[in-house]
Amino acid sequence: MRIINLDHVAAVPVLPEVVKEMLPYFTEKYGNPSSIHSLGEEVEEAIGEARERVAALINADPSEIVFTSCGTESNNFALKGTVQANRARGNHIITSSIEHFSIMHAIKTLERQGVEVTRLPVDCYGMVDPDDVEKAITERTVLISVMHGNNEIGTVQPITEIGRIAREHHIPFHTDAVATAGVIPVDVKAMNVDLLSLAANQFYGPKGVGALFVRKGVRIEPLLDGGIQENGLRAGTENVMAIVGMGKAAEIAARDMQSRIDHMLPLRDRLMKEVPAAIEDVAVVGHPTERLPNNVSVLVRYVEGESMLLFLDMEGIKIASGSACISRSLKVSHVMLAMGIDAGAAQGSLLMTLGKDNSDQDVDDVVRVLPPIVQRLRDMSPLYKRSGKVKASC
Amino acid sequence: MRIINLDHVAAVPVLPEVVKEMLPYFTEKYGNPSSIHSLGEEVEEAIGEARERVAALINADPSEIVFTSCGTESNNFALKGTVQANRARGNHIITSSIEHFSIMHAIKTLERQGVEVTRLPVDCYGMVDPDDVEKAITERTVLISVMHGNNEIGTVQPITEIGRIAREHHIPFHTDAVATAGVIPVDVKAMNVDLLSLAANQFYGPKGVGALFVRKGVRIEPLLDGGIQENGLRAGTENVMAIVGMGKAAEIAARDMQSRIDHMLPLRDRLMKEVPAAIEDVAVVGHPTERLPNNVSVLVRYVEGESMLLFLDMEGIKIASGSACISRSLKVSHVMLAMGIDAGAAQGSLLMTLGKDNSDQDVDDVVRVLPPIVQRLRDMSPLYKRSGKVKASC
Repeated sequence: MRIINLDHVAAVPVLPEVVKEMLPYFTEKYGNPSSIHSLGEEVEEAIGEARERVAALINADPSEIVFTSCGTESNNFALKGTVQANRARGNHIITSSIEHFSIMHAIKTLERQGVEVTRLPVDCYGMVDPDDVEKAITERTVLISVMHGNNEIGTVQPITEIGRIAREHHIPFHTDAVATAGVIPVDVKAMNVDLLSLAANQFYGPKGVGALFVRKGVRIEPLLDGGIQENGLRAGTENVMAIVGMGKAAEIAARDMQSRIDHMLPLRDRLMKEVPAAIEDVAVVGHPTERLPNNVSVLVRYVEGESMLLFLDMEGIKIASGSACISRSLKVSHVMLAMGIDAGAAQGSLLMTLGKDNSDQDVDDVVRVLPPIVQRLRDMSPLYKRSGKVKASC
Repeated sequence: MRIINLDHVAAVPVLPEVVKEMLPYFTEKYGNPSSIHSLGEEVEEAIGEARERVAALINADPSEIVFTSCGTESNNFALKGTVQANRARGNHIITSSIEHFSIMHAIKTLERQGVEVTRLPVDCYGMVDPDDVEKAITERTVLISVMHGNNEIGTVQPITEIGRIAREHHIPFHTDAVATAGVIPVDVKAMNVDLLSLAANQFYGPKGVGALFVRKGVRIEPLLDGGIQENGLRAGTENVMAIVGMGKAAEIAARDMQSRIDHMLPLRDRLMKEVPAAIEDVAVVGHPTERLPNNVSVLVRYVEGESMLLFLDMEGIKIASGSACISRSLKVSHVMLAMGIDAGAAQGSLLMTLGKDNSDQDVDDVVRVLPPIVQRLRDMSPLYKRSGKVKASC
């Protein structure tokens, strides 16, 4: 059976060129960068090169890149490390109501420890209003954290504008760019950000490695205490192989970004148009234009996303419902609730995330296979027979 | 030039069998275990198998294994997570004065946040006295953390006895077993431990993956908040490939442990006897018998460890001075200072850590190459010409 992966937000294969670059670090170049002898030197150099490549992807200085073990660690580090470093200055954080779990729950932990939190609302497209950011700022605000692109609904936030406001008020600004770095242009200078999280597995690099951009002069304390690796900001023996892989994947992402976007955009637009056209009572979720080029998020009403997903899986089509991170928790998406979508409708979420290898054939197959599955599930659903049309959120 | 690696504590190559097991997870089995569809299922199963293998290595239940990104993360998680979960019960920690940086600095961070700390002394062999542990316990004690084997001096602590005391007082007991798990027998039941840190790169597995054993019923909060991976205790997309590698390396370590020990012990004992015999004013550091089978730690007096190390490197011999983690920080080892060794003598530390592939030829070469290097450095040292003999610590 032909496998169609439309769940790239959950996982992508590592590029062969990246694998090739990583392999020598298993057995030949296995040194520890902290060693002074020559086994350490050769891997220290490799890490330096990876740091340059990751920095180039986001227009940062290599000294501003701290390697971590994943996007979740980068987010936890950014939030907890900034709050800790600014204890004397204040204890108020501004964030949005549609952040990734690794932001949302890290902030809940900080809140239990006495930090005050303002969670900004979003409009029906999942968009934060920069004016709301400005209004929420107090003298005690030590951090603003608003994500760049939302992995669940595709909406890309007005980061540059929020960053400008943060800078005017001299407040550190963090953005979770895990869904965008390596996918669309990310420029930490142009975007006015002080801290930015990214992860290699979102741009055809390996799992188990991420980075946090920390602008020079920004105060942050480590999340992992110990040795003096990563300029004293992240202890632990460097995951050399994975860091090298992230560097190579970043280099390729920078090189191929425009061609990947040019390839994915028409496929995205076909899905956003043809799926609602083929099935009654389907609404597109998220912003129509300020949107990730790889994200198609729809609500299929009167059907549970999970049921659709399992039937599609049997046909070889891999799709998610809500975000990959919450699939197994079976909770209604907090992102959709924040957008004003009712809990019942949010259950019918289908999230299709494209990759560079998807094709028009893949879109044809989804548009062909999905409608009879939805019809079959609706026929089984007493809810469908009872309900009238429900209102879309926008 | 023949390369002799006597710095296995810093880095080991990944075993070919382990690499083979990991490779499919780059490009074929690249799914996200959190996905409900079939790409997720196959990797979820692989992680389950790895969890069983790691659990078997330390006689734990698979449900008690939490995968992390390294030993440093495991240690930070154990300490900060236990303190956080027991805030209502107390705020006192007991630890030793010879812990790894990832314990020592994590505890310093906790101390700055108001946690009270008792740091137990060690004797001249670097050994903690269990009676001191018992005497240090107060009604506010929420954690005892004493390492199993010390990576710098080789001394193995009386963990079973300390664990018995901790259990009698109903206090959670953590041990940093990064230097021992996979190297010598570690049995969490027999040793009476509640929390135990281990790392794959100490037993021929990949960098970038570790684990924390958390006994059923022990209260701990996550260090990385976010998704519900690892039973809600460690968020972040699972580093599937590395976890699979750790599982395979654990399986092989359990199988080959005794033969590796039988191979390394005579080499260790030769080095501990022949290096001091070949060079004047050399003292063995650490316990003579309660000692890691792969650890040879000596002080070469009136010489700087780092100079010896660089000259040895030119001869192809890779050796550390102090621990790998502090090599680049150029600080005097806190472990040796705690043992009563004076700062000047501690500068002459040479740390040789054996692996399964070292040979009698390697020992012959070290015993042949080292004395003229030491002599040359001493000839250049005004200190040597002035000094009389200094007292050994034991």
